[in-house]
Amino acid sequence: MTRLAYRFRDPALGQLALTHRSAGKPNNERLEFLGDALLGVVVAELLYEAHPHASEGELSRLRAQLVNGQALAVIARELELGDELKLGSGELKSGGFRRDSILADAFEALVAAVYLDAGFEGCRDVVRALFEPLVAAIPRSSKDAKTRLQELVQGKGWPLPQYELVDSHGEDHAKTFDVICEITEPTAIRAEGRGSSRRAAEQEAAETVLHRLQELQD
Amino acid sequence: MTRLAYRFRDPALGQLALTHRSAGKPNNERLEFLGDALLGVVVAELLYEAHPHASEGELSRLRAQLVNGQALAVIARELELGDELKLGSGELKSGGFRRDSILADAFEALVAAVYLDAGFEGCRDVVRALFEPLVAAIPRSSKDAKTRLQELVQGKGWPLPQYELVDSHGEDHAKTFDVICEITEPTAIRAEGRGSSRRAAEQEAAETVLHRLQELQD
Repeated sequence: MTRLAYRFRDPALGQLALTHRSAGKPNNERLEFLGDALLGVVVAELLYEAHPHASEGELSRLRAQLVNGQALAVIARELELGDELKLGSGELKSGGFRRDSILADAFEALVAAVYLDAGFEGCRDVVRALFEPLVAAIPRSSKDAKTRLQELVQGKGWPLPQYELVDSHGEDHAKTFDVICEITEPTAIRAEGRGSSRRAAEQEAAETVLHRLQELQD
Repeated sequence: MTRLAYRFRDPALGQLALTHRSAGKPNNERLEFLGDALLGVVVAELLYEAHPHASEGELSRLRAQLVNGQALAVIARELELGDELKLGSGELKSGGFRRDSILADAFEALVAAVYLDAGFEGCRDVVRALFEPLVAAIPRSSKDAKTRLQELVQGKGWPLPQYELVDSHGEDHAKTFDVICEITEPTAIRAEGRGSSRRAAEQEAAETVLHRLQELQD
């Protein structure tokens, strides 16, 4: 079944994963929920290993580039899932087997089916084999925290971040700088950063502000 | 360390999980990224098992109720993580050990630390022990798809969904109904539903429209 490098002990699980909701119930919707979470964790681990110095924010961005409807549809096409999809007559007529969202959902469901059939390690092996080359090919974002914060507030039309050196201490050859970064929109956020240069302290403070902004969205 | 029912083979991993970014580097931020994904999958599986008839949308909503900053902070407090947090002086002074977001992040990081220390099964056991009572206590949403769709569009100020019976066929005692559900905002979406009653067909169509709306957000 398909080009997935996995043979189901329980073939009904694999078939369920390829049954779109348009074909009636049971279908792959519930598996898709589980598969989405499994993909998230296996790709998170790959990125965690591949980028030991990337921040949480960078890891999140990288994963969003790898795990999204369009990217998963590409994988689904490589696995030729479209040929095996079970669709209702309406979706069949309108070419549902070519639709990104239907293909991506089927791939997610298939990941969950492998998990239920083989356990976490088996599922992890299958997903890693598919994503390892993609993780190796994706460039880590080279934009630093100050740049990302500035681009973010400019994009939203908010006032620019303000940086203020509040303290520096230590001997000349081993100085420490404390900097405050402050934004006023969408809400007032002040964060402190510390570093061995003013610039490093600013980066640290900007990273914290970005972090708090992300918390606001969560 | 803490009230978590787990003893680390590598205690440094547990300590890293409780080191907030304000205390410098390395800290728990990267672990938090991994732990968030692990929590997602273990709680997804618990809900998948506990609610065999819940739709993907319902499972997502239930998980969002269980896995969010506030809910995780409650667990972190039960585990008394606040007492063990390593914070920078600024966060210490401002009572960071009591802040929901810092506590929730530390709990997520701790989940990842258990994963790295014990593997998936060990991590799954720890998370399941914490979440099983919560999953058992949470009521499954009783709102049907039509109600949820109507509340959603009303909340946004969009025009109400329109339902149209397009076909009914079969003998009187085993009739099948085909219904179209249509919305015009935020974009035109038409979906067909089929059921053994007009109402069941409408529910099915509304569920598909909700599904497409969710895809737009993803």
